[in-house]
Amino acid sequence: MLLRSPHILSMSDLNREEIESIFQTTDTFREVGGRPIKKVPALRGKTVINLFFENSTRTRTSFEIAGKRLSADVINISKSSSSVSKGESLLDTVKNLMAMSPDILVVRHPAAGAPQAVARVLDKTRIINAGDGAHEHPTQALLDLLTIRDHKKKIEGLHVGIVGDIAHSRVARSNIGGLKTFGAKVTVIGPKSMIPSGIAGLGVGVSYDLAEVIPELDVIMMLRIQSERLGLRPFPSLREYSRAYGLNLPILQRAKPDVVIMHPGPVNRGVEISPEVADGPFSLILDQVKNGVAVRMALLYLLAGEFAESEA
Amino acid sequence: MLLRSPHILSMSDLNREEIESIFQTTDTFREVGGRPIKKVPALRGKTVINLFFENSTRTRTSFEIAGKRLSADVINISKSSSSVSKGESLLDTVKNLMAMSPDILVVRHPAAGAPQAVARVLDKTRIINAGDGAHEHPTQALLDLLTIRDHKKKIEGLHVGIVGDIAHSRVARSNIGGLKTFGAKVTVIGPKSMIPSGIAGLGVGVSYDLAEVIPELDVIMMLRIQSERLGLRPFPSLREYSRAYGLNLPILQRAKPDVVIMHPGPVNRGVEISPEVADGPFSLILDQVKNGVAVRMALLYLLAGEFAESEA
Amino acid sequence: MLLRSPHILSMSDLNREEIESIFQTTDTFREVGGRPIKKVPALRGKTVINLFFENSTRTRTSFEIAGKRLSADVINISKSSSSVSKGESLLDTVKNLMAMSPDILVVRHPAAGAPQAVARVLDKTRIINAGDGAHEHPTQALLDLLTIRDHKKKIEGLHVGIVGDIAHSRVARSNIGGLKTFGAKVTVIGPKSMIPSGIAGLGVGVSYDLAEVIPELDVIMMLRIQSERLGLRPFPSLREYSRAYGLNLPILQRAKPDVVIMHPGPVNRGVEISPEVADGPFSLILDQVKNGVAVRMALLYLLAGEFAESEA
Repeated sequence: MLLRSPHILSMSDLNREEIESIFQTTDTFREVGGRPIKKVPALRGKTVINLFFENSTRTRTSFEIAGKRLSADVINISKSSSSVSKGESLLDTVKNLMAMSPDILVVRHPAAGAPQAVARVLDKTRIINAGDGAHEHPTQALLDLLTIRDHKKKIEGLHVGIVGDIAHSRVARSNIGGLKTFGAKVTVIGPKSMIPSGIAGLGVGVSYDLAEVIPELDVIMMLRIQSERLGLRPFPSLREYSRAYGLNLPILQRAKPDVVIMHPGPVNRGVEISPEVADGPFSLILDQVKNGVAVRMALLYLLAGEFAESEA
Repeated sequence: MLLRSPHILSMSDLNREEIESIFQTTDTFREVGGRPIKKVPALRGKTVINLFFENSTRTRTSFEIAGKRLSADVINISKSSSSVSKGESLLDTVKNLMAMSPDILVVRHPAAGAPQAVARVLDKTRIINAGDGAHEHPTQALLDLLTIRDHKKKIEGLHVGIVGDIAHSRVARSNIGGLKTFGAKVTVIGPKSMIPSGIAGLGVGVSYDLAEVIPELDVIMMLRIQSERLGLRPFPSLREYSRAYGLNLPILQRAKPDVVIMHPGPVNRGVEISPEVADGPFSLILDQVKNGVAVRMALLYLLAGEFAESEA
Repeated sequence: MLLRSPHILSMSDLNREEIESIFQTTDTFREVGGRPIKKVPALRGKTVINLFFENSTRTRTSFEIAGKRLSADVINISKSSSSVSKGESLLDTVKNLMAMSPDILVVRHPAAGAPQAVARVLDKTRIINAGDGAHEHPTQALLDLLTIRDHKKKIEGLHVGIVGDIAHSRVARSNIGGLKTFGAKVTVIGPKSMIPSGIAGLGVGVSYDLAEVIPELDVIMMLRIQSERLGLRPFPSLREYSRAYGLNLPILQRAKPDVVIMHPGPVNRGVEISPEVADGPFSLILDQVKNGVAVRMALLYLLAGEFAESEA
């Protein structure tokens, strides 16, 4: 196998060569989505289980489409229709599923570290972390890195600003890991209450002033504001937040002419990003989603495909 | 392509020749459901997304079975397990899904006009309206028309009564459009509070007395009473409604000997229709459901199949 | 067809020869789950509908994986996203689904007897009872019997203890039927309030003292305690129950050295079974789950496969 770990748990498990390998594999799957017949037989007879303990449209659908276009059998398990409500522990649920011999388990869970705990009990099944609490979301970071490279032809040396509630964002954490691996300069931007105190230890810059730092940025990654967190002191109100850290046309005029704007979705229009910016010419939001399917096809293939087996 | 519009949004978009084409295609798919191997490869490698913002068993299952029997990959997204609860707008949800390059989006939404709004942002993806608020439900009207023709050998010149809450029924609105296109005479029947004032402008007759008009009808389409609307003034109570507009054996004795009875389901037994009538020899309710799968196979095929592409 | 009944409703419908046939068919499907390509074309073009009116992870997923590994089209309908909430009766829902010509309906329902009622209205479609109230859960009993035979090389003459809320357990009822058919000795064990008064009429022994009877048992089947029932008089509290009827290491030391322990899941760790026992060397819990997929493949195949048709 091209990857050292049998699982995709965290960006910190992947070195630059491995990420390059994933991108190369992604390139071979990219055009499948544009074909009249969007299907290859690579994972025929493989079983992929999407085990989602949080609601999701984009990520679950992206994995499901990726699996089906590879001809895998895809099984969805969501909190709302499962016996998780009966109080079974996550590890018991997973051990039971393992006994049905799936090839890949895609897990989203509200608790940080849940997929890592699951990985420890797995035998042949491989796991992909589709988001664990405020911890990691590695497939999002991979698709983000690929999208940046598509548009900037490189990642090394770029200055990337990540704007929002850094402290509670798995997207921020995973992207910081990946961006540093590729030699980008990263600045996290947000109100003090949303920046974890030890963040500089990760080798990133910190700014509390988006307007001041925006002229230096090549890439602006906006994070989704989870409005249920706002209003709780010491967070500012939605309106205060939006005025200081929202990305809109006036503030965007201070940015480089070739800046690109990203957002993991779902977008809160008018809160962290204005509609004109989200839909504007600098926005890569839908490119991110498109790349998401191809990156996930690559990961499923690398973890469960013929190649993985011949090396096993 | 046989159809002028790339989408199926409203019966008013379809002329008689187009509907005849849909029925011809339906005929080629009808017998698939009766075969030992109920599957044809027509849509292999195509992606159909069922995006349902309202609960549904019959319509969602009908589209899912139709898609799978055509060998398409079918993805279900329901309100209960999606991030729609995170407040993303419908158009953002759809743009994100489009970025995953589905071929067809089947949309049910509580807001009238939602699929039309979606259609405006679509590029290559085609949309089928599976019910939008009190507006349109064109696939229901198509399967109803086909069911009438199966049993009456024609539609032109028939007198069709549609009974119930006309004002709030997308089934009524779509059927009126289709029936007029084929030259049927239509009378809507219900209490004054359930008949929209301008309805005569659509070229239909109006009656407030089912008993009086029933002897003239060739086809009786009963609408489902949405009991959450009843009891709200100026609607009558369930019991009053049932006494005046419910279809039961005594009133059915006044009907033509070859009358046929239809209902889009789910049926409120004992409210708008008595069990003896719903299960009786004049009832076409299950024929409607059976035709639904075949009509939807035809529509998916016409919008996404080889034929659609070669003409594109 | 190898089975006299076209449906799998109750263990009392299956005689020993039929169960042996099911196990022979299961043996041919067992190894499919261990192959690199876990898929056979046996049910290509067949439609299996999972109609689940109760939440379920294990059983629904087991049937879905079984169906997909046989190449069937599998449709899931769960209470949470269906129009069951619109008040349609079970029989109307089923008649509507039948009109879409599925080959097999897998039904779980909270009401005892629901699948039997459904079977009476079915025509060509076959039904598998996936659990009806406190009545029957025949596929669980079949996989339990197979798991016992795998590990004990026989069932006849074994002494099996079933421990827990016998009165409300469909697992207990179905297993008693199957175990008696194979000539096992069965003792039900639990507090008086959980043992139905007429149970001896089924030819089983009764004990209120697990510690006393455990040395005689070859197989211990623990039942899940449904904590919503406990605390209601005359049931003991969770703690009292656990002390008297929970299976833990101290009490297990009184058991035979080759005893095996089973549980249908989901497990309440620390209530009816301690973690050390659930995960210990005598536990067959995950073997049960693994066998579940193979048994369900066999049942789907026997009811809908080529063999069923050639005999029809």
